[in-house]
Amino acid sequence: MAEEKEITAAYIGVGDELLSGRTQDTNFFYLAGTLQELGIRLVRGAVIPDDLSAIEETLNLFRHRYTYIFVSGGLGPTHDDMTVEGVARGLGFRVVKNPVLESKLREYFRARLALATLQMAEVPEGAVLHFCDQLLIPVLSVENIYLFPGIPELFEKKLDSIKERFRAAPFFSAEILCDRYESEIVTLLLETLKLHPSIKIGSYPRWKGTTHHVKIVVEGREESKVEEAAAYLRERLPRI
Amino acid sequence: MAEEKEITAAYIGVGDELLSGRTQDTNFFYLAGTLQELGIRLVRGAVIPDDLSAIEETLNLFRHRYTYIFVSGGLGPTHDDMTVEGVARGLGFRVVKNPVLESKLREYFRARLALATLQMAEVPEGAVLHFCDQLLIPVLSVENIYLFPGIPELFEKKLDSIKERFRAAPFFSAEILCDRYESEIVTLLLETLKLHPSIKIGSYPRWKGTTHHVKIVVEGREESKVEEAAAYLRERLPRI
Repeated sequence: MAEEKEITAAYIGVGDELLSGRTQDTNFFYLAGTLQELGIRLVRGAVIPDDLSAIEETLNLFRHRYTYIFVSGGLGPTHDDMTVEGVARGLGFRVVKNPVLESKLREYFRARLALATLQMAEVPEGAVLHFCDQLLIPVLSVENIYLFPGIPELFEKKLDSIKERFRAAPFFSAEILCDRYESEIVTLLLETLKLHPSIKIGSYPRWKGTTHHVKIVVEGREESKVEEAAAYLRERLPRI
Repeated sequence: MAEEKEITAAYIGVGDELLSGRTQDTNFFYLAGTLQELGIRLVRGAVIPDDLSAIEETLNLFRHRYTYIFVSGGLGPTHDDMTVEGVARGLGFRVVKNPVLESKLREYFRARLALATLQMAEVPEGAVLHFCDQLLIPVLSVENIYLFPGIPELFEKKLDSIKERFRAAPFFSAEILCDRYESEIVTLLLETLKLHPSIKIGSYPRWKGTTHHVKIVVEGREESKVEEAAAYLRERLPRI
């Protein structure tokens, strides 16, 4: 079954500001949409504080279980930027100064180069640099872990610039808006799932201000199976 | 120290739609802002699929470590609503039909009562019902775990209606907008932290389209300490 060798991903958002209600994390949602379009199943999201042991622990919870780990935030030169060190600790690797990054930073900042900026040349040992058009700092990866900046504009630019390397077999889906209550369609949904075991069905109730009560989402890896299941539902819903 | 008996919280958002990029989770952000205002430190956020073992595992990772666990989503009558059963499993409790909820549902739906709606009377054994003004279905809690619906309007209404029971000692904070780059203020931030060990400082760089480069957030439990640290920074920043 396709399910068995599913390519999976997890997200780790690092930042006290995401937990204090000061900043709404939009990177998770952007990543989710991107991975869906690429055919990769995002199966876990985590938001954690700027804290070394939180980074280490969460990374080690995820990194052996999922194909790719996307980390957002905590890259930078100040005391609350702990992602590089946390990831290195999680892997049991040292933090080393990357000579390519160092020369990039020296060249760009020249006389304005403060010691602290050079800290941005530090990477977990064995890290790979993925340079992106028009951006000085590349995406870092180490093993199956990809490190992105928390600033949404940069996160999005960088993800867009390297996303094609992750592309997998596509998902297919169909949406059906329905003016019944969830409790009225339970049996039909179960019946559809039994007849179409390769697909997944999500049922999403709405609250006021909409013209429908429930959005039904049918999803699978085989387009024809998705269409069959959706047709089966569309045919039977009006009779409920 | 105040830090030692800190009241903490974790969030678990349950729903395939949050992971597929179809729906942006706004409940986490709403909870984060509410808890900050209540003086409770939110320390973990998790987004997980509609899957019993994911719910069970995440719950057990969090429930002994944090004071309160807020769960959003997966309450409802369809096959993809698994929160009640997942929570019960995590606790090693049975799922039982709550007689108060059952009679509320029977009274409200009367003739339209489908069997599936009665599933919404099922709760983890020992659950406590917290009724909210103008809403039929109460917030359920069991041990330190609070269950909320995923629909944002309901999540917010229900959280607002019970939030006062969680109120703790307030946080105080000050924000300073600064037109230096992060690398230029590293030393000053470290110096400030050394002189004011009871406060936390966050440093948040911006990207284009803003009049400042970095937002500095000073936070602590003692208002006077926060003001002192902020004054210290404000005095020295223009000289950098």
